[in-house]
Amino acid sequence: MIVVKVGGGKDLNIDAVVADIAALYQAGRPLLLVHGGAETTNDVATALGHPPEFVTSESGYVSRRTDRRTLEIFEMVYCGQLNKMWVEKLQTQGINAVGLSGLDGRIFEGTRKDTLRVRVNGKRMVLRDDWTGTVERINTHLLHLLLDGGYLPVLTPPAASDQGEAINVDGDRAAAMVAAAFNAEALVILSNVPGLLRNFPDEESLIREIPRAKANDFMQFAEGRMKKKVMGAVEAIGEGVQRVIFADGRIESPVSKALDGGGTQIA
Amino acid sequence: MIVVKVGGGKDLNIDAVVADIAALYQAGRPLLLVHGGAETTNDVATALGHPPEFVTSESGYVSRRTDRRTLEIFEMVYCGQLNKMWVEKLQTQGINAVGLSGLDGRIFEGTRKDTLRVRVNGKRMVLRDDWTGTVERINTHLLHLLLDGGYLPVLTPPAASDQGEAINVDGDRAAAMVAAAFNAEALVILSNVPGLLRNFPDEESLIREIPRAKANDFMQFAEGRMKKKVMGAVEAIGEGVQRVIFADGRIESPVSKALDGGGTQIA
Repeated sequence: MIVVKVGGGKDLNIDAVVADIAALYQAGRPLLLVHGGAETTNDVATALGHPPEFVTSESGYVSRRTDRRTLEIFEMVYCGQLNKMWVEKLQTQGINAVGLSGLDGRIFEGTRKDTLRVRVNGKRMVLRDDWTGTVERINTHLLHLLLDGGYLPVLTPPAASDQGEAINVDGDRAAAMVAAAFNAEALVILSNVPGLLRNFPDEESLIREIPRAKANDFMQFAEGRMKKKVMGAVEAIGEGVQRVIFADGRIESPVSKALDGGGTQIA
Repeated sequence: MIVVKVGGGKDLNIDAVVADIAALYQAGRPLLLVHGGAETTNDVATALGHPPEFVTSESGYVSRRTDRRTLEIFEMVYCGQLNKMWVEKLQTQGINAVGLSGLDGRIFEGTRKDTLRVRVNGKRMVLRDDWTGTVERINTHLLHLLLDGGYLPVLTPPAASDQGEAINVDGDRAAAMVAAAFNAEALVILSNVPGLLRNFPDEESLIREIPRAKANDFMQFAEGRMKKKVMGAVEAIGEGVQRVIFADGRIESPVSKALDGGGTQIA
């Protein structure tokens, strides 16, 4: 199994990702796609008069403040606009894609953190009525049904809480959990950089290889959203994924090139 | 199989529909839910600066002008906001719901009408670059996989064209096709009226029974959006659905009451 995670960044070459996935899939490589949508969600939230807010946890991670209205807009973009865009593009390539959120069939399941301890402008605050959480389990039953039935699953947040509520979860870490659940041969994480950079944003400073035992040490090079990608990679490797690759989603054949040794390889 | 179609009208009692479906499903009745979202789509399209336009076909049916941006907004609302709302509400009742559009796995398949002959203010016009169509086939393979696997499918437009493009299709007629594909014992169509009214909008003029052979004759009483519901009903009955019921979606236990003889029964 190859799990491909593709972000929602606007400079990604979506048609190249689709063509490459279609070619690999039609060549018989078992595949699963997980996508995000943070950037588009920011735009739509702003257009709908409910602009995004971000908060920083006490351990330094940035996440989206997700009140009920934000959750609704998040679902509009991730599960509506973008999930169906990916499915349509794959369907027009002859791939029988099926788009699902982690809420559907509780594919991604975890605990809702209804109380968030955060820092806003350096001040400690406690946020309530928040709809975020972390994926703790992947329910593979539905995914196996789809894969065995000849469908290509296209997955996206939100996840389901233990009570069945929708929760905003990080897509990179969800993809890492999916890869772990399938003991994937590779988790390919595509974004708008060539991989993990020693001196962000200098693309010449690409780190080409990270020994799996040292993955955690490379956390120091992760900036911004890359932090959760590296965290997901470390988790995935720890749970038996053979290879994690951070690769460039702006180029032609981005998945094949990653599988052929491009980007940052953790193996 | 019971197929429940629920519109997107804001005065529907959504929690009552969910509680009733959950009770029936947990009592062992096989069920499938199809939902719409026209009213919310109008609101969101307006809020996003792309207000809805409606056109009337030469045969007198009103439909949404669906350019590419409208299709995207349509998917945001139907597949994102509303589909995940239904799935979340069912999941919190302990029902393992799976929300899918007709595009996913090509569940609803049909032909795109890229050229629409319409009347606008009485004038004949030809519209191109439109993304509408009619469901012609239901691919039951994926639905059987889900039902046999213990999942409750929650379906919504769009459909897939023969080329795999997303197309805006009428949800009532899609639900009728689903009911026909399963030889359903009942198709329950819930909306914000008690059923088919002899003198619309006089709710006292409810037509309680329509003999199946006469269904077509009752088309004359259908106003506005009810036209496509009656058309779907006539098609469903013609293809072997045992009972079609137009019933009130604003009341408690709306599905059970419909199955117990409420609303307008075509049987």
